[in-house]
Amino acid sequence: MAELRKIISDAERVTNNETIIEQHSQDLTYHSPYPPEVVVYPKDKNEVHQVITFAYQHNVPIVPFGVGSSVEGHVIPIHGGISLDMTLMDKIVDIRPQEFSVKVQPGVTREQLNRKLKSYGLFFPVDPGANASIGGMVATNASGTNAVRYGTMNNQVLGLEVVLADGSLMKTGGISAKSSAGYHLTNLFIGSEGTLGVFTEIILKLYGIPEKTVSAKAVFSTVEQASETAVNIISAGLSIGRIELVDEHTITAVNAYRDTNFAEKPTLFLEFSGMEHWIEKDVALGKSLIEDFDCIDFVFESDPLKRTELWEARHQAVFAIQAKYPGQKPMSTDVCVPISVLPEAIENARKTISDNGIEGAIFGHVGDGNYHVVFMVDPQSQEEIERAEKINHDIVRFAIKNGGTCTGEHGIGIGKIDYLQEEQGSAYHLMKVIKHAIDSKNILNPGKIFN
Amino acid sequence: MAELRKIISDAERVTNNETIIEQHSQDLTYHSPYPPEVVVYPKDKNEVHQVITFAYQHNVPIVPFGVGSSVEGHVIPIHGGISLDMTLMDKIVDIRPQEFSVKVQPGVTREQLNRKLKSYGLFFPVDPGANASIGGMVATNASGTNAVRYGTMNNQVLGLEVVLADGSLMKTGGISAKSSAGYHLTNLFIGSEGTLGVFTEIILKLYGIPEKTVSAKAVFSTVEQASETAVNIISAGLSIGRIELVDEHTITAVNAYRDTNFAEKPTLFLEFSGMEHWIEKDVALGKSLIEDFDCIDFVFESDPLKRTELWEARHQAVFAIQAKYPGQKPMSTDVCVPISVLPEAIENARKTISDNGIEGAIFGHVGDGNYHVVFMVDPQSQEEIERAEKINHDIVRFAIKNGGTCTGEHGIGIGKIDYLQEEQGSAYHLMKVIKHAIDSKNILNPGKIFN
Repeated sequence: MAELRKIISDAERVTNNETIIEQHSQDLTYHSPYPPEVVVYPKDKNEVHQVITFAYQHNVPIVPFGVGSSVEGHVIPIHGGISLDMTLMDKIVDIRPQEFSVKVQPGVTREQLNRKLKSYGLFFPVDPGANASIGGMVATNASGTNAVRYGTMNNQVLGLEVVLADGSLMKTGGISAKSSAGYHLTNLFIGSEGTLGVFTEIILKLYGIPEKTVSAKAVFSTVEQASETAVNIISAGLSIGRIELVDEHTITAVNAYRDTNFAEKPTLFLEFSGMEHWIEKDVALGKSLIEDFDCIDFVFESDPLKRTELWEARHQAVFAIQAKYPGQKPMSTDVCVPISVLPEAIENARKTISDNGIEGAIFGHVGDGNYHVVFMVDPQSQEEIERAEKINHDIVRFAIKNGGTCTGEHGIGIGKIDYLQEEQGSAYHLMKVIKHAIDSKNILNPGKIFN
Repeated sequence: MAELRKIISDAERVTNNETIIEQHSQDLTYHSPYPPEVVVYPKDKNEVHQVITFAYQHNVPIVPFGVGSSVEGHVIPIHGGISLDMTLMDKIVDIRPQEFSVKVQPGVTREQLNRKLKSYGLFFPVDPGANASIGGMVATNASGTNAVRYGTMNNQVLGLEVVLADGSLMKTGGISAKSSAGYHLTNLFIGSEGTLGVFTEIILKLYGIPEKTVSAKAVFSTVEQASETAVNIISAGLSIGRIELVDEHTITAVNAYRDTNFAEKPTLFLEFSGMEHWIEKDVALGKSLIEDFDCIDFVFESDPLKRTELWEARHQAVFAIQAKYPGQKPMSTDVCVPISVLPEAIENARKTISDNGIEGAIFGHVGDGNYHVVFMVDPQSQEEIERAEKINHDIVRFAIKNGGTCTGEHGIGIGKIDYLQEEQGSAYHLMKVIKHAIDSKNILNPGKIFN
């Protein structure tokens, strides 16, 4: 700490205050906490450079920390060292409306950015649910409900400024819309979970806010019908912005939690967006496609407040489960399977959690085959943790066996290292080669992605 | 050759036939040819594995070859060795319409793939102009006229099967629509120009063929008005599939070549595509936006044959220049600049080539700021080559100074190595670290991207 305070003299920004240490020892989930030795809040790239240079010289682990909303233990400093909290680096540096791009510091949050962009008629589409920091979203290759239209973070970053393990500063990409200039280092750093470098600036693509947005909800008898309908709607080329599936048991839990009376059946939540003159007919065409699949009920809504109400059961899915188990912490599976496998995968997942006597929410980004099973775990109970891991294990195994991946959007962290190896085979070995080539001392977020 | 024929006994597939050697010693451009010692045509991944294992053991350079349509000397074996012609590996392995994906071998061409996909109502959108092989398109991160809607190859590849420098086989990514499982090796190999591995299978994203496509052409007084109009049309959220700019001098050359009488003014070529009920009003809105910028003439066309006619001047731009200089070979610049800089960049480029007494075509992917200056060079004349390189130098310098890149879609090859270093700074160093970590013997396409 004494050495670090030579770099950053402001005592509040180099601290081992108990509350702050505790905050930086955990994430939102059941993963066991472990404290950093010190929490450092850099204010600019030069401080990041100096702190990491110090850490490199003294072999001290560096664990970047955004808002702490990741869910695979990414921010837990399992080998101690420095938790590098990036939240003071929260400047929106340069908005370029004509280029549809913005340069931000990593501590800027998604909602902060979109509030600022609104007056330009622009927005940044990736929406993982949480009000995550942009730096954290890049680090985990976040996506969420908008990915069916806009893709993942992997498609949204034009350039990065990164401090490497030895403290040196490097820029990748730039402000032009595309480039074929050498290897795509930008994409190598996206999803690297703090193990290859610490971001100090991020250049993002932006999009025009759609002229019109309409939400809709369609209730089906079976998950299979709902999934097939989703594929058909996407195939048709309609202006779908989001398309989400919630299973019947989850709707039941929401009804109990909110005292609502949504039909307790598999439900698709949809959003159409685009030019105003596209939408009316797109919704009508969507409705007719949906009716071909024995839809029980279809409603749509364009008023912003009522649109939110319509999506209520989707938004409340996790809270409905959380509320019933105070003191416990959530676990979320995150497999992504080929879309044709999704109905069977969801059915299989529901059976797995029922067989284990667990109550959980299941909801899927049905446009891309990524779905989550969220359930609560007592982090003090080894038995419960083991049961949770067994459930995850079965769900991941099903996904990998069917050509899927253990993580669609949450990343590996400490929770999925074994699966990464199983799923990626010799590619896992090459990832380790690259990690070693870029961070030979293994000081950047050690123990994440790799053991 | 004797050793290679132990691997591949079919003499026609391991050859030093003079014509075949010559074909594999050059690309389409002014770059100096250099012959491989042998050309090998593998038929499957096992043969690729064996050939590369042999090359690794004996330190023989391996230069992958598709259809040879790249333009920066990528396929020229400047250090001799084996030209690995992938054209016999041309199977479309697995079409998954419900997943919007297809698995192909690298020798499949873009047009071959799209012919096959048509009956499924699907298509692969990346269109670099040439009927390139998919393997080559991945290797150079190709894009082209569709990139404004669909992005580049960097956004289109779900997974790869790659033979590494030591002959080992590795898979990256997979068939699920997204993944956050470790580093994005897929994106590292996209645009690696044969320097990190040889592709044996490629999994691509697919898209539904738009229900309706309309082409349009708008003539302006100045390049600036045309560029600003393009930005406004894209901002408006209209269903633009392509938007291309051709400068007035290029139209003049086309008129002389084809005896046509297109207005010799900066011209925007547009394509609207999407649901039928979107298009009519989108075109009308586009027209009104265009008229705000003193458009001289606006026409649109939905009949497929007449659409092609409408784009005639755009399609003929390069041929118009080529036809005037028989025996010479083309050079194409490929900078990409922030879109707001594009009018000035094009004006500057036109001045540069005029000052050097050169006649060239200028056309731009105005939606992404990437534009080409194409002119003919006598490959026997050192003076002409030096003049061409000086022109390229001035155009690249302008781009880099204004936040752009030396290559939007053609790649580095042998032609832009110095600029890569200048543009990417310390990122260039990290690229070399990665190259060395993955191909320590430097047998994979040596002398490309790096000296």
